[in-house]
Amino acid sequence: MRTTTAWQSQDNSTRLDRVAIERRELRDDDIAVRVDFCGVCHSDLHAIHGLVGKPTDGLVPGHEFTGTVTELGPSVTGFAVGDRVAVGTLVDSCGGCVMCRAGQENYCLNGLVTTYGGVDRIDGSITKGGYSREYVVRADFVYHLPEDLDAAGAAPLMCAGITVWEPLRAAGVGRGSRVAIAGLGGVGHLGVKFAAALGAEVMVLSRTPDKANDARALGAAGLIDTTDEEQLAQASGRFDFILDTISAPHELAPLINLLALDGTLSVVGLPLPTEVPLMLLTRGRRKLTSSGTGGRRGTAEMLAFAADHGITADIEVVPSAEVSTALDRLERGDVRYRFVLDLADLDAPAA
Amino acid sequence: MRTTTAWQSQDNSTRLDRVAIERRELRDDDIAVRVDFCGVCHSDLHAIHGLVGKPTDGLVPGHEFTGTVTELGPSVTGFAVGDRVAVGTLVDSCGGCVMCRAGQENYCLNGLVTTYGGVDRIDGSITKGGYSREYVVRADFVYHLPEDLDAAGAAPLMCAGITVWEPLRAAGVGRGSRVAIAGLGGVGHLGVKFAAALGAEVMVLSRTPDKANDARALGAAGLIDTTDEEQLAQASGRFDFILDTISAPHELAPLINLLALDGTLSVVGLPLPTEVPLMLLTRGRRKLTSSGTGGRRGTAEMLAFAADHGITADIEVVPSAEVSTALDRLERGDVRYRFVLDLADLDAPAA
Repeated sequence: MRTTTAWQSQDNSTRLDRVAIERRELRDDDIAVRVDFCGVCHSDLHAIHGLVGKPTDGLVPGHEFTGTVTELGPSVTGFAVGDRVAVGTLVDSCGGCVMCRAGQENYCLNGLVTTYGGVDRIDGSITKGGYSREYVVRADFVYHLPEDLDAAGAAPLMCAGITVWEPLRAAGVGRGSRVAIAGLGGVGHLGVKFAAALGAEVMVLSRTPDKANDARALGAAGLIDTTDEEQLAQASGRFDFILDTISAPHELAPLINLLALDGTLSVVGLPLPTEVPLMLLTRGRRKLTSSGTGGRRGTAEMLAFAADHGITADIEVVPSAEVSTALDRLERGDVRYRFVLDLADLDAPAA
Repeated sequence: MRTTTAWQSQDNSTRLDRVAIERRELRDDDIAVRVDFCGVCHSDLHAIHGLVGKPTDGLVPGHEFTGTVTELGPSVTGFAVGDRVAVGTLVDSCGGCVMCRAGQENYCLNGLVTTYGGVDRIDGSITKGGYSREYVVRADFVYHLPEDLDAAGAAPLMCAGITVWEPLRAAGVGRGSRVAIAGLGGVGHLGVKFAAALGAEVMVLSRTPDKANDARALGAAGLIDTTDEEQLAQASGRFDFILDTISAPHELAPLINLLALDGTLSVVGLPLPTEVPLMLLTRGRRKLTSSGTGGRRGTAEMLAFAADHGITADIEVVPSAEVSTALDRLERGDVRYRFVLDLADLDAPAA
């Protein structure tokens, strides 16, 4: 085994400890990545608080990171030491099921392996995430980072970015589409950027009207204040597609009411059970769907599109030693729009 | 006013009384229809029992009927006395809203008028349905009955038929589609016929495995017994589209589990609030939708398609005096697959 340094949660709190952890020796098809930048995702908070059934004893979060190749297993092709790379929420899948064959490894029926809190398919160990200086990962789940993309700003593309990309693509969003993005946070702000770059007319739905200028700067036509009944009534039936990125429990009915005939509400931010008003779907044959991150093909497409359109996340980079502060501020919604940890400080001895 | 004879519910029970009711004198754009055959729909039961918020005092049900034109308002064109016609669940709408302009009068935003229990847009009277010998209706909501279709068997097309037709069409069901119809009743059996005629591979999902032969006779490849966990497990992820026609409260989760990647569950049989397991939609980016009957354009298309493919309902025709027995048997699920009232007995004095 090899060792690296990581930020670990022990007690369901956001006070993470700097610890030494083990990484496996490289298998034939593995790549060792020096983690340079890792985004702080809302699901990291869910995991730390034990909401999604993952172990919190010895949890190392982090599933959207960019870094540099430091070592290659003997059978790896297409990568070289020194390459800039990116890793997202998945690090392995069965490869043979109908979902894997469809390029949707994120829905693998035989047990996909998540980047942290997952169970390695070969040795059964629990995966530890990107809040660490090194990650060892099967090359099939490593992506080249396009050279035009800033390594820090690109890190959130690997979870937040693909999380919005796949539903936008699955819904066929493009020129002429009337799209709303509900929630302007780490995920939502990338939803605005991608939807606008795809050619859609985009509005932001938010309880925070003072984000209207931000919404426009990100590419939206404007912001609808979802606490204002009059604005909601005026927007009734207006959107072909609403991407709901709100991570706090909330009612879906007001969003469904904004859908046009045959419109779709895609809920990507809410992992909790939710009551759905079926009758509201009836009026106008509206659809409710959800999705979770994306597959390898979609992730590669998303990175290429981001490079073509100059899309990265709007970020606040902090030294990884400030991870607890970042998590606490994220929990309060105090970030525009994504924290990214700079892991370089782990090369120095602990303060 | 003119008078006719009708079957009326007074007390939330299925004991309907034979009464004289008034119909309006014809407006310029009205047609008077002698009602020959009227289907008995599950929503008639809901209405009688007061489940859908409609008045039950003086309720005359019936919203899928065929008949004969007996009189025309002066501005009506395209119809002649003696024409065979059909009327469905809608008898008026605003005509100007975005839904009406899209040909979806069934979702009219300014108050569509249902065939019974609705509020007439002009005089404010409560509409009374097709369990009666005459109906006076705006010509725009009257359809020519194609000559190849049996008038009794075609009556259920006007609610049950359009209820399955629109979601099948909206989902793009055709050759190569893997479709399941959940529930093999009045609505479901027409779902099988239409889906098969559209070229789909169709399976029936039912708790009643002894309907397997019927399912095949209707055009399905077979029947999956939804009480058999093994059969359900084998069918996991198999269908692109599931049309859920079950009118009793039931769990949606087992049906969602049968959907393939990007598959859609369309719930058309269940008017009651339902808890939806959002997380199940996430895995495989599956969609939940619903719809209610159809618009004028879809209804006309459905009738033409039915005529081309020889599709009518499998029915049990009874004299209208047996309406209470028919309702009670429908409530027990004891009909294969739709009761149709023959209203001719209303021409004779009450027994």
